[in-house]
Amino acid sequence: MTLMRNGFAFLLGVAVLGLPALSGCVASGQAAATTSEAAAAAKSYTASRHDELTQQFEEFLAMPNVAADPEGLRWNAAFLSAQLKALGAETALLSAPGLESAPPVVWGELRTPGATRTIVFYAHYDGQPVTPSEWETGKPFTPYLKTVGGEPRVYARGAGDDKAAIFAQMTALEAIAAAHLKLTANLRFVWEGEEEAGSAHLEQILLANRERIGGDIWLVCDGPVDQTRLQSLAFGARGDAHVQITLFGPNHPLHSGHYGNWAPNPAMMLVQLLAGMKDADGHVLIPHFYDGIAPLGPVERKALADAPVNDEMLRQELALGHVDGGGRHLLALLNEPSLNINGIAAGQTGAHSTNSIPSTATVNLDIRLVVGTEGKVEQQRVVDYVRSQGYFITESQPTRDELLAHPKMAQIKLDPVEEAVRTPMDLPIATEVIAAVKSARGRVVLLPTMGGTVPLKAMEAAAKTHTITVPIANHDDNQHAANENLRLQNLWDGAETMAALMAMR
Amino acid sequence: MTLMRNGFAFLLGVAVLGLPALSGCVASGQAAATTSEAAAAAKSYTASRHDELTQQFEEFLAMPNVAADPEGLRWNAAFLSAQLKALGAETALLSAPGLESAPPVVWGELRTPGATRTIVFYAHYDGQPVTPSEWETGKPFTPYLKTVGGEPRVYARGAGDDKAAIFAQMTALEAIAAAHLKLTANLRFVWEGEEEAGSAHLEQILLANRERIGGDIWLVCDGPVDQTRLQSLAFGARGDAHVQITLFGPNHPLHSGHYGNWAPNPAMMLVQLLAGMKDADGHVLIPHFYDGIAPLGPVERKALADAPVNDEMLRQELALGHVDGGGRHLLALLNEPSLNINGIAAGQTGAHSTNSIPSTATVNLDIRLVVGTEGKVEQQRVVDYVRSQGYFITESQPTRDELLAHPKMAQIKLDPVEEAVRTPMDLPIATEVIAAVKSARGRVVLLPTMGGTVPLKAMEAAAKTHTITVPIANHDDNQHAANENLRLQNLWDGAETMAALMAMR
Repeated sequence: MTLMRNGFAFLLGVAVLGLPALSGCVASGQAAATTSEAAAAAKSYTASRHDELTQQFEEFLAMPNVAADPEGLRWNAAFLSAQLKALGAETALLSAPGLESAPPVVWGELRTPGATRTIVFYAHYDGQPVTPSEWETGKPFTPYLKTVGGEPRVYARGAGDDKAAIFAQMTALEAIAAAHLKLTANLRFVWEGEEEAGSAHLEQILLANRERIGGDIWLVCDGPVDQTRLQSLAFGARGDAHVQITLFGPNHPLHSGHYGNWAPNPAMMLVQLLAGMKDADGHVLIPHFYDGIAPLGPVERKALADAPVNDEMLRQELALGHVDGGGRHLLALLNEPSLNINGIAAGQTGAHSTNSIPSTATVNLDIRLVVGTEGKVEQQRVVDYVRSQGYFITESQPTRDELLAHPKMAQIKLDPVEEAVRTPMDLPIATEVIAAVKSARGRVVLLPTMGGTVPLKAMEAAAKTHTITVPIANHDDNQHAANENLRLQNLWDGAETMAALMAMR
Repeated sequence: MTLMRNGFAFLLGVAVLGLPALSGCVASGQAAATTSEAAAAAKSYTASRHDELTQQFEEFLAMPNVAADPEGLRWNAAFLSAQLKALGAETALLSAPGLESAPPVVWGELRTPGATRTIVFYAHYDGQPVTPSEWETGKPFTPYLKTVGGEPRVYARGAGDDKAAIFAQMTALEAIAAAHLKLTANLRFVWEGEEEAGSAHLEQILLANRERIGGDIWLVCDGPVDQTRLQSLAFGARGDAHVQITLFGPNHPLHSGHYGNWAPNPAMMLVQLLAGMKDADGHVLIPHFYDGIAPLGPVERKALADAPVNDEMLRQELALGHVDGGGRHLLALLNEPSLNINGIAAGQTGAHSTNSIPSTATVNLDIRLVVGTEGKVEQQRVVDYVRSQGYFITESQPTRDELLAHPKMAQIKLDPVEEAVRTPMDLPIATEVIAAVKSARGRVVLLPTMGGTVPLKAMEAAAKTHTITVPIANHDDNQHAANENLRLQNLWDGAETMAALMAMR
């Protein structure tokens, strides 16, 4: 493994800047920095180095980081491990028996003598798959700058999700070292390489390296901040459960003229099945769907009431003529489970449409979960609903005999579930995290639940600790889509936030 | 233009068989053949030449005949014109001013001195587009034989739809010539090259060549016979009108976690819109959809009552657990308009599904029309229905301002319409056609309306005559799909049917 590839060599930041490694620069008798001193150091450090840091970030983004390119992922991992080492950390690439070929977890630790606690920073270095043709430049790994609304952004896969968080953490470490600040906590870094592939091996790898990944709190640095650009902290995340339903018509597509009015159309059956699952406001009508939701406590309810209401701004931004939810706010609605059609397909549309009755129709649904609603239970409620509509359910491709025997037949596939997690906002460590981020950034938006899903359950189970999510990316970063980007101000703000968290006592 | 391509040379049937051309073989004083004599001649002619004729049919099928290959279409046209000439016909490739680059209509005429009438045989030499990867062999234009249920079939694009009809007509002409039978009618052949592309230029070409294409009856030789394998005659065809509807959600796909419950999902909106268009039996609920249907007369009603009921056989063949229509038979249901989802699409399904809220959702509908239901009127009823569900309708891609201004927005595209046609079964010429076919084939299934759509309206308008559809292909020929085929017995039966029709007095 080399850090040279495609004729490009990454220049390690600390080497460029001639910085001493962190652990070597703190005089033993010096007073520990406050969180606001650390944040101020990061602000001052980045303010004078925008161009240089932007270039380094672009070089990081130029390393392909998709599951389809395992070599690219190994390159990222080796690079990050070397970076952490250069910053004075003890490092390792964590794996587990039998998982040697999976992208490793990049691990690093900065110990402080006499530390009273350990803070773990989680982020992920892998990105969503790319379809280059959908990108403005056709090149998701050739980063470029563009000014949007007067503010510079850098475009590349991983810019927002989630290399920004890793780069902000590295930058915060450099800033603290450059300012010769003393820390009092041990810091651990856990940077995953399979988050966008569902973190299939994360829990196994964490369990196999349990002594290295524990801490007083896991700070999960992923996701977008509030749409106002205010820093957010999320104390949980919705879970996710998938359901794929396929309905069956004739055993091959039929001429819609010769058979239309007689041969059942699976696309029509599917729309009729799905239509009854929600009302016109987006409220789910599947029986018991909302049963069991763990109610928010008074602290969480107050946080929600204090959060900015961005609904109208978002409605304008997304060109929406109406929104679901019956007038309730987005942030409140994220504390309830949701049901979404991710995709639906039967026959062909547009120029490829033919005059036929399709043979099958398929829908992929995702159910977002909140604490108290279990994934398997919600999946079963969907299955029960389908059955209540007269469908015979099968897991595998139905046989001819089965198709003939049952008026209506649905093949349903249920994927493994990611459960929801919520950390109480009034835990002592939660209160300290909030105070640290406020000392750096002023007003902070506190969310009981982030809408998206993060494998927090696996982290909490393996590390036996709580998680708090500290996102830094702009909400409009085209996460999971083409033209992913990061508003650079979010990187500078993120370095401040990370520095403050590193200085927690 | 050459008849040699890809190293393959088609041997003209008449040359191989050493037959004299038709017009040269009929002694002037000889008594004219009856329709059953002509049919018997065809039966005897094909019975002794199955292998040789099958090989010639395969060579015809080896000529690519898709719209994407204009050279292939020209090759087919030149070949057919040469074949007709060799059979003694006056021939021409018909076009119209400005349409010189469109596939021509192959025209031929066999005149009989003192003829009392002219019979026109329509068929088409172009085939549906192909997706080679979907074919068993990957090669839609490399014909091959396969035995299905003990009976040989030939597989290739165009085998059933509609080169079988052309080859049966040519074979009937050869058989009549070989048996030295005398005919009393003038025969005209109109073989189109753009049927599968919607016959966009047919009416224009026919109008520009009006003096060559008139006759007492147009026999439209296209489509499948009854599922019992009995010969069918259809006295009309349903028309077809298309409607494409696109609904709009956020202006780009959104993360279903961060926005699910709040951002409207256009796929869910679309299924709710479509679900109300039909009931669970397939009955269309759009107001006035069935208004105006011209009722069948007593002759047509009796024909329907006499037709075989193949519903259970078809249900088994297609592996259908239930059928639409509330217990009414397929053949009866084809005399009503229908509404079908040809395709629906939003987001991605299966392995490509992502946790997102799609930006748009699209459905393509086709409406089959019967006499009395006009295409534009039915399209408007669908548009009115969509509007009644709260949608603002636009023809073009809505602007951002429009999207913001209207809670629900639908972009609707309406394609040009093909209207339905029905020839009364008790017209004198209709009675004669029925008698001729019965004399050749025994029991004949008489259908007031064929389910599929043929541009009969354009033919009738240009030729100022009626049309009767005389299909010869097997119903299970995978028409419009991969692995299109013809059961060879249908070719031999078809030659008998065509010979009898050529001998009508």
